[in-house]
Amino acid sequence: MTKNIKVNAAILIIGNEILSGRTQDTNTSTIALWLNLIGVKVKEVRVIPDIKETIIHNVNLLRKDNDYVFTTGGIGPTHDDITAESISEAFGLEYKIHNEAYKILESYYKPGEFNKGRQKMVWMPNKAKLILNPTSGAPGFSVENVFCLPGVPSILKSMLGGLKNEIVGGEPILSYTLSMRTVESEIADSLTTVQDNNKDVEIGSYPFFQAGKLGVSIVIRSEDQSKIDICSKQILEFITKKKIEIVDRN
Amino acid sequence: MTKNIKVNAAILIIGNEILSGRTQDTNTSTIALWLNLIGVKVKEVRVIPDIKETIIHNVNLLRKDNDYVFTTGGIGPTHDDITAESISEAFGLEYKIHNEAYKILESYYKPGEFNKGRQKMVWMPNKAKLILNPTSGAPGFSVENVFCLPGVPSILKSMLGGLKNEIVGGEPILSYTLSMRTVESEIADSLTTVQDNNKDVEIGSYPFFQAGKLGVSIVIRSEDQSKIDICSKQILEFITKKKIEIVDRN
Repeated sequence: MTKNIKVNAAILIIGNEILSGRTQDTNTSTIALWLNLIGVKVKEVRVIPDIKETIIHNVNLLRKDNDYVFTTGGIGPTHDDITAESISEAFGLEYKIHNEAYKILESYYKPGEFNKGRQKMVWMPNKAKLILNPTSGAPGFSVENVFCLPGVPSILKSMLGGLKNEIVGGEPILSYTLSMRTVESEIADSLTTVQDNNKDVEIGSYPFFQAGKLGVSIVIRSEDQSKIDICSKQILEFITKKKIEIVDRN
Repeated sequence: MTKNIKVNAAILIIGNEILSGRTQDTNTSTIALWLNLIGVKVKEVRVIPDIKETIIHNVNLLRKDNDYVFTTGGIGPTHDDITAESISEAFGLEYKIHNEAYKILESYYKPGEFNKGRQKMVWMPNKAKLILNPTSGAPGFSVENVFCLPGVPSILKSMLGGLKNEIVGGEPILSYTLSMRTVESEIADSLTTVQDNNKDVEIGSYPFFQAGKLGVSIVIRSEDQSKIDICSKQILEFITKKKIEIVDRN
C-alpha cells in the first residue's frame, strides 16, 4: 500500500565561512534528518559563496530540478547577507519591505532598538511567505518551492517545525542499521549479492572505529518496511554464516 | 609583492550517508583549511549520491571550472564504492588493476588476507597517480587535476600531507578574526562602509553564542596582509568609538 511517490529536495548552503573551513556545516544533517521523517529525500547539497550571481544561478537551477530547495545563511543584517536580494532577482520579484515581517520585528524589539541594521531583515522578495522564528524574531521566508532559512544552527532548528504543513512529502524514508564487528572487505561480496537482489533498496556500508575497535555499519534505506525486512534477513543470513558479531541494530 | 594568482578548488563529497543526514561531513572543513595554507581557495562544494552518472557529470563539470577538484568517499571495497570506476568513465580511461597499488596492498596485508573485496581497491583509472595512505594501506589516486580521497575523516587527514607537492597554490589565504561583544545590527552599517572601501577583501560577519553570551566574529580574508591590516584598523576605529568590547583576536 505504498504511495511510492518520490519527493526530492536540494540544500543550498550560502556562506564563505563554510567554504573557508572556518565553520563546520551542521545544517545539512539537521535538515536532511527532518526531511526523512516527512518523506523528502535530499538529492544534492551545494555550498556556495556570498556572491549574488552565484546564488541566483544555483537557485534557478536547483528549483527546477527539485520539488523543494532549502537555503541556509545570508538573511541577517550585515553587508554579506544577500540571500533575500538574490532570491528576489532569481524570481524576478521586487525586493521590498515585507509589512508583516516589519510588524513582527517592530514589536519584538524594545522601542528605539529596531534600528536600520535590523530593518534590513524585513526586506524580502515581494509577497514572500514568512517562516516564523520562535528563537530570535527575524523570520525566514519562502517563494514558491524555495525556503530560505538562517545559517545559525540553533535558530534554523527552531524554525523547521513551523514548516511542516508547507512541505508535502511522499512516504517517510525508513532505515535500519546493522552494526557489526568486521571489516568491509569480509562482507563486500555477500553484500553485493544482496544489493543485486534488491535493486530498489539503498544499501550503504560504512566502516567505523569505536572505542579502539573496527566495525562496519550496514544501512538499509527504503520507503517500504517490508523491503527493508527482506534485505536485513538476507544480510543476517550471511553474517550468521560468517560468525560475525552484531553489536547494534536500530 | 603579491603573486596575486587566484587558485580555486571544488570539493565533491560522494556519499548517500551525508545526504541522508546520518553522517555529518567534516572533510570539507579539513580540506579547506589545509588548502588555505597552500593558497588554494575552495569555490564550491557539492554533496552527491553514489550514482555513477551523477558522479561523472559533476566531475566533468567541476574539473573544467576549477584548478583542482577533490573528491571524498567511495573508494572502499563494497558495492557502493564506485568512485574509481566513475572517474575512469569521466576521463574515458580504462578501469583496471593498478600494479603499484596492487603491490602496496599485497605487502600491507598478511598472506591470504588480500582477498577479493580488498583487491577491488586496486582497480583505478589507467595510469592514475597514487596518493599514499599512511593509515590503512589502500591508496587514493589522482587523474589530471582530480584528486580522489577516502571518506573516513582520519584516513583522509593522514593522506593530505602527501599531496603537498602535487598542488600548486597561489599566495596563502590569510585571515584575521576580531570577536566582540555586540550584535550584528549594531555594527552592520559601519561594517558595510569598511567593505565598500575595501572591495577586494573578503569581510564576513558571524554571530555566535558562547557561554550564554552573544557576540559577533568579524573575519577578514585576503592574500595580502597589508590589506587585512588596513581593514582591521578601520574596523577597530568604529568598534572603539562604539565602546564595544573585543573578546578575542587571532
